[in-house]
Amino acid sequence: MKLQQVTEELKSQHADAAWITTPLNIFYFTGYLSDPHERLLALLIKENGEQVLFCPQLEVEEVKASPFEGEIIGYLDTENALDKYPLAINKILVEAAHLTLQRQRELIAAFNVQSFGDIDHIIKSLRNVKSESEIAKIRRACELADKCIEIGVNFLKEGVTERQVVNHIEYEIKAYGVNEMSFDTMVLFGDHAASPHGVPGDRQLQNDEFVLFDLGVIYENYCSDMTRTVQFGQPSAEAQAIYDTVLKAEQEAIAAIKPGVTIKDVDAIARNIISDAGYGDYFPHRLGHGLGLEEHEYQDVSSTNTNKFVPGMVVTVEPGIYVPGVAGVRIEDDILVTENGNESLTGYQK
Amino acid sequence: MKLQQVTEELKSQHADAAWITTPLNIFYFTGYLSDPHERLLALLIKENGEQVLFCPQLEVEEVKASPFEGEIIGYLDTENALDKYPLAINKILVEAAHLTLQRQRELIAAFNVQSFGDIDHIIKSLRNVKSESEIAKIRRACELADKCIEIGVNFLKEGVTERQVVNHIEYEIKAYGVNEMSFDTMVLFGDHAASPHGVPGDRQLQNDEFVLFDLGVIYENYCSDMTRTVQFGQPSAEAQAIYDTVLKAEQEAIAAIKPGVTIKDVDAIARNIISDAGYGDYFPHRLGHGLGLEEHEYQDVSSTNTNKFVPGMVVTVEPGIYVPGVAGVRIEDDILVTENGNESLTGYQK
Repeated sequence: MKLQQVTEELKSQHADAAWITTPLNIFYFTGYLSDPHERLLALLIKENGEQVLFCPQLEVEEVKASPFEGEIIGYLDTENALDKYPLAINKILVEAAHLTLQRQRELIAAFNVQSFGDIDHIIKSLRNVKSESEIAKIRRACELADKCIEIGVNFLKEGVTERQVVNHIEYEIKAYGVNEMSFDTMVLFGDHAASPHGVPGDRQLQNDEFVLFDLGVIYENYCSDMTRTVQFGQPSAEAQAIYDTVLKAEQEAIAAIKPGVTIKDVDAIARNIISDAGYGDYFPHRLGHGLGLEEHEYQDVSSTNTNKFVPGMVVTVEPGIYVPGVAGVRIEDDILVTENGNESLTGYQK
Repeated sequence: MKLQQVTEELKSQHADAAWITTPLNIFYFTGYLSDPHERLLALLIKENGEQVLFCPQLEVEEVKASPFEGEIIGYLDTENALDKYPLAINKILVEAAHLTLQRQRELIAAFNVQSFGDIDHIIKSLRNVKSESEIAKIRRACELADKCIEIGVNFLKEGVTERQVVNHIEYEIKAYGVNEMSFDTMVLFGDHAASPHGVPGDRQLQNDEFVLFDLGVIYENYCSDMTRTVQFGQPSAEAQAIYDTVLKAEQEAIAAIKPGVTIKDVDAIARNIISDAGYGDYFPHRLGHGLGLEEHEYQDVSSTNTNKFVPGMVVTVEPGIYVPGVAGVRIEDDILVTENGNESLTGYQK
């Protein structure tokens, strides 16, 4: 099915082969995941559906043990991988958002490629709609993110530092069986959370401030990404008003998500609520983004996206208001678009 | 000094500007580090030395707080960053190993670029030689890696799992003040270590096997990367023979490193010792790699690198022998090339 959409695109663009180099896209097609660092890892898909995976020699055994059933071309660090598979290609489709100029030159030199086209849009549109099995993994990743928040909230006490809370959450969730967070866990106290890209440090928790948690885990290669901003004591009236505005924006935006609704309209719902409350200038980012093999993936939930929601999409909804010196509040859930509406895969109270 | 080498290269290639997009290279020139994910982050350096940093709007305050002194162009998710800085460029030098075809198209569209050249080699050659301040940071990262090994070794006991050891090391070193490991910590027991890219799992430690630790930390953005393979009880005679061979290969290779020596000759010293012992087929990777802002960076310590060592380089030396069903042994130190020889920045016993 996935393969068929690629071979159909090859036919439609009169191309001989597709060249896939993003590790997660290679995983998406082959079931084999690896970070090759600066080495080449590439999947060649020919018009007849034949697949060839180029990988470092020291990964060959792992590829054989993976679900991938095509041909494997292993190469040593001292070899040119492409020279090991002589081939002439007239037109090749590549991931323009991933293929570098240098890799393009190597393709031209080895395969005498005459022209290039794009395959990105096909892979994006495939990955945009999650299968049942993908949804089950994201669902589990979201349950584990809920658990992380619970662990973090239970650890809060006056004087604890942001980094101590981060370290405690990650230790406990890994002891619970998680191998990897989907990004660096963020725990920020009080007005430190007003920096939307703040880094947890040695700031100590004081009474009567908010604590922002932004975190996610990877479960069987699928990500969660959630944010909660919780009270520790009684934050100021202004901070509380900011919280209430963000919560209202988030809830009303989520309530509007269903198949057929235009994505930018949902961004507008949240943005208008925040603007009407006078905080429009303090919400400087899109409402959300796609979620799956990556914690940020196609497609944006933003004011410019005119696509419509379709069943099987999973997106974040994460409005935020960041007022320097006062407070930073963000609330984020992971939303599965269903046949008739949506379901929040994250559930921690807010 | 760094800037001057870039502007000289611009003159020499008759180019108007350089376009730097690798986040760590941007940090190298500006002191500002950020992971922009799929967003654009780029440093423009003009022939007159003027610098312009393009970054997401929500990072502008952080850039202002950084050492960077050039112009800052912030953009919203809904804007095209390049449109905010109208410019015509005839020839631009880019990082061919980082710039994607899509970003190249955007440059052509916005700046009417007529031709492209490479700047990668200049940045690589600058980063190849570390300054005193860079060396001090790598040295500290190496001391902390030594400490990680010590923490891990002290935690070994029969029945503990690989993942438990990983989690313990990372928790303890973070409580000690480290924010981030330089890559996923690897702890592998017995013959599981025979997979050079093995992933720590639920395998339990048994008596009389080797334990392989491969880990590193990031200290002020600089990395360490070290490996120790330690006895737990008394491994088999064959495993011990493999260990002795790897240790000899590592020590003799390191002893040969000094300015003026050709890099591939050092790879050959280790490779010959391993081949002479009959394990040549079980050492499938290069001897080492550069180390600095990245845990793997220019340049390779491999059998094809005909460059010479120069003072200020930092490289790993990490021979390994991986015999399936028997044992996997790798020993790795981080070596600073000095005026007259070298110094190992990692020191844990071996």
